[in-house]
Amino acid sequence: MKSAKTYIEKNKKRFLDELIELLKIPSISADSAYKKDVLKTAEAVKKQLEKAGCDFVEICETPGYPIVYGEKIIDKKLPTILVYGHYDVQPPDPLDLWDSPPFEPVIKKTKLHPEGAIFARGSCDDKGQMYMHVKALEYMTKTDQLPCNVKFMIEGEEEVGSSSLEWFVTKNRKKLANDVILISDTGMIAKDVPSITTGLRGLSYVEVEVTGPNRDLHSGLYGGAVANPINVLTKMIASLHDKNNHITIPGFYDDVEKLSKKEREKMAEAPFSLENYKKALDIDAVYGEKGYSTNERNSIRPTLDVNGIWGGYIGEGAKTVIASKAFAKISMRLVPNQDWKKITELFKKHFESIAPEGVRVKVKPHHGGQAYVTPIDSLGYKAAEKAYEETFGKTPIPQRSGGSIPIVALFEKELKSKTILMGFGLDSDAIHSPNEHFGIWNYLKGIETIPQFYHYFTELSK
Amino acid sequence: MKSAKTYIEKNKKRFLDELIELLKIPSISADSAYKKDVLKTAEAVKKQLEKAGCDFVEICETPGYPIVYGEKIIDKKLPTILVYGHYDVQPPDPLDLWDSPPFEPVIKKTKLHPEGAIFARGSCDDKGQMYMHVKALEYMTKTDQLPCNVKFMIEGEEEVGSSSLEWFVTKNRKKLANDVILISDTGMIAKDVPSITTGLRGLSYVEVEVTGPNRDLHSGLYGGAVANPINVLTKMIASLHDKNNHITIPGFYDDVEKLSKKEREKMAEAPFSLENYKKALDIDAVYGEKGYSTNERNSIRPTLDVNGIWGGYIGEGAKTVIASKAFAKISMRLVPNQDWKKITELFKKHFESIAPEGVRVKVKPHHGGQAYVTPIDSLGYKAAEKAYEETFGKTPIPQRSGGSIPIVALFEKELKSKTILMGFGLDSDAIHSPNEHFGIWNYLKGIETIPQFYHYFTELSK
Repeated sequence: MKSAKTYIEKNKKRFLDELIELLKIPSISADSAYKKDVLKTAEAVKKQLEKAGCDFVEICETPGYPIVYGEKIIDKKLPTILVYGHYDVQPPDPLDLWDSPPFEPVIKKTKLHPEGAIFARGSCDDKGQMYMHVKALEYMTKTDQLPCNVKFMIEGEEEVGSSSLEWFVTKNRKKLANDVILISDTGMIAKDVPSITTGLRGLSYVEVEVTGPNRDLHSGLYGGAVANPINVLTKMIASLHDKNNHITIPGFYDDVEKLSKKEREKMAEAPFSLENYKKALDIDAVYGEKGYSTNERNSIRPTLDVNGIWGGYIGEGAKTVIASKAFAKISMRLVPNQDWKKITELFKKHFESIAPEGVRVKVKPHHGGQAYVTPIDSLGYKAAEKAYEETFGKTPIPQRSGGSIPIVALFEKELKSKTILMGFGLDSDAIHSPNEHFGIWNYLKGIETIPQFYHYFTELSK
Repeated sequence: MKSAKTYIEKNKKRFLDELIELLKIPSISADSAYKKDVLKTAEAVKKQLEKAGCDFVEICETPGYPIVYGEKIIDKKLPTILVYGHYDVQPPDPLDLWDSPPFEPVIKKTKLHPEGAIFARGSCDDKGQMYMHVKALEYMTKTDQLPCNVKFMIEGEEEVGSSSLEWFVTKNRKKLANDVILISDTGMIAKDVPSITTGLRGLSYVEVEVTGPNRDLHSGLYGGAVANPINVLTKMIASLHDKNNHITIPGFYDDVEKLSKKEREKMAEAPFSLENYKKALDIDAVYGEKGYSTNERNSIRPTLDVNGIWGGYIGEGAKTVIASKAFAKISMRLVPNQDWKKITELFKKHFESIAPEGVRVKVKPHHGGQAYVTPIDSLGYKAAEKAYEETFGKTPIPQRSGGSIPIVALFEKELKSKTILMGFGLDSDAIHSPNEHFGIWNYLKGIETIPQFYHYFTELSK
């Protein structure tokens, strides 16, 4: 296969313009106010898949947001690659921390991205990375170099737990049949250190509500005499970690995969500077579970984080009130062997059990997914390795990630195929944060590398 | 002095209509968006004081919201009563819990108020109670029964800590000179149990901010490896109470006034049903400092309550984010001898000292005030006692309140006179809460009782 470099150089402006158009649509799946925009994004993806060379594209209805399915089958005897991605994005809050509006993409140069980066919600996660695959297909079809069959499955509910995906996959096993699944929804270690994600954490996301008195009370008249739901909630949350930052939920660690000393030593070889890490986040110290390094804490160990908390008066000035209710959104990242449904139950049972007298507690499970570890001796992994070697001139490093793409475990179970996670994002891209961006260099490097994967996967499958 | 009953009966509708007009103006001092309304309310109060018979009324500028001053001096040899009240109100949040809009007053009958109650923010605290004094003055002037001199000082910053009042009082000692200060900004035990508030708690109100990483982070990639400001904040707040609900700030209790066994026994005689208390709040148990009764916890003991907490994603759905910052508004109710400025300093020092590595903590003092206990053998107290006996047919009970009116201590220091707290509100009036209301019976009973205070205070002063 020829290098895509020349084609990319010639079409670079259009590749960026098309992505920018896609980024302008606020496809926030978590907020029903944006329903029309989410649906509009599905339509836009469908149109682009058709333009890029798919023979058949359809918008498949689900109980939630639709899934865009596309395919180009050139020869049934050749291998089939299934590309998965998502067209929905995270909510952009807090809006006031964005330097430019999240849905008005702008290209700005940064220290890490002298070639420029596109700043917009979804630029990296996952519209930008998903769109690399659409443009890679365009390159292969327009230059008659597509070496195998390809299927696309682009969903609109990834940021809210892919709630309709299992329903869709189990109903469409035949349609989705494939030899390998390819996803770009992760990152790489650095621009000059390509990596393939081989481990993903699972997730259990819950919302808790603590109710005290049946109405907001004057803190002067009632303060000290009734349980204050906010004070109680802080006590309950605080008790979920002990002084070594171990999670205190009974049974939480029962199924946690224990890595051998050798494996941990190998992990420790990955290039990492604690000083740079702290500097990039402007913190004076890291923080976490005793006995584990920073890279272990965010990959091979389960965690519990409050993602949001609210209650009482949060406006300007002061209000001396005891709130009737306090709330928190809490997520737990899980590691292989921990079952997210079991963990959600353990959390619920424990959290309800530690509620003191004088309050009532509700735990509402949101969504979740299983952790996953991919083998590094599969055909797919080897093809990806070769593809990176071709375009980066370096062998990629296998990397465990702290994030969760729960659907990888689902795919293995339902479609019986392995997933390869070729991510081109960087840690500094600020996904899920204000000022999310995606380097133009990374975007184009992805478009260049993906066709090589098609090539080597087809070659190795012979 | 003749009973005001007939006059009140004749003018009842107008008395209600005038108050309703005043309640329609959203004079929320905590929110600068309502600045015009706060100023408009001052104008309205000025107009009504003039109409009620004051000889001189002016709007006095201060560094904050203005103070409305009015007076009617009939004879310099006669005693002078200074009436204090406030025309500002608490923010109405959470709005969705109001059965009718907070600034569209409606009269509804309730079980406790078969004669009807006015539902609106400020109906009891303090527009309704302040306006009783205006109407009582009207009665005395229109029927030629005013027995002494009267001065009014109605401020617009009580709900945000009376920040300009000290400035004003110290600048106007002569203008404000008086023999007794009369305030209706408290409650009574029950409609058939009149009471005079003799103790008030002090207050220290602070806002805290915990900053972790310099931006919101993806909880999958960073979860477990960096300090999560929300988790840290919950731990810090939780640690402010020990397992017996004592406050853990070093030195916090050093100056707390210790009541004798006898005093506590006398307090315990006040009618109180724990069952009804729990039922009214729909809670299965009370909660508070070990070793103290409910009535002690909310009157003679200092407390620490979170009045608001926020951080991270608090919208619909789920967002897997580690917030860069988390915040809380915290207030401490103080008892006599505790100095609010010292306590604020102790809090700040302690809270900053317990911040773990990996976060930065800011403590911003909001406002505060001293606690106060009034004697029950003063002329003023005796006059109030007789006034209640006249209109309720019962001797009022001296009562310690958990609330704070910091200005009482200020008045004693700067104006050298005692304050009498004649409150006509009820605990169930939901001040500072949604659906605040004030019983029509209570409103009119206040107008009836106040002139009797004027009468007896003048008599006893002879």
